[in-house]
Amino acid sequence: MYVSVSRLRVEPERSDELVAAFQGRAGLVESHDGFIDLQVWRSDRDPSEVLMVSRWEDRDSFTAYMRSADHRVSHARIPAAVKDAITLERLEQMHTQMHTYDVVAE
Amino acid sequence: MYVSVSRLRVEPERSDELVAAFQGRAGLVESHDGFIDLQVWRSDRDPSEVLMVSRWEDRDSFTAYMRSADHRVSHARIPAAVKDAITLERLEQMHTQMHTYDVVAE
Repeated sequence: MYVSVSRLRVEPERSDELVAAFQGRAGLVESHDGFIDLQVWRSDRDPSEVLMVSRWEDRDSFTAYMRSADHRVSHARIPAAVKDAITLERLEQMHTQMHTYDVVAE
Repeated sequence: MYVSVSRLRVEPERSDELVAAFQGRAGLVESHDGFIDLQVWRSDRDPSEVLMVSRWEDRDSFTAYMRSADHRVSHARIPAAVKDAITLERLEQMHTQMHTYDVVAE
């Protein structure tokens, strides 16, 4: 399983808007081959730290999505005021080495 | 959902042993209330970067596990040579703000 983690830094007063933008997203990624899930995590101690984690069957599926029109559309939907408040601090690309089965699915 | 991310730095020549230790772990955490899953991710570019991600229904479930005998036992099972090669660079505690349903479960 391939994992992409985008570590975002957002102005704290825009943090809730960023989360709301994720919650109200168009949901285009779901239809792409190899997509597993997308999670957004926010630090308990620092609301300016937001991680966007997407999981894919393999790296090629992720790359194909990143080059797609759907990705451009999704990005274009982010409100300009929120986009301006975000910095991508770090992008990590990883492979899963171990994963237990989910005991509970959310 | 509560997420704990331990960012580990391991000497590169010990990275495979660390992964093997996770794969061969005792599996004690699974029986704890509120445990959802445990994932181990390794950077594609840098084998010294390993993330251990555990997900829980809430923070209290995680805290209870961290104080349990099972956690001490699990930690004690890590080979000394591997333990000495690991540094905990960062511990992040987050809450899930958004999560799509899994399309595929691993």
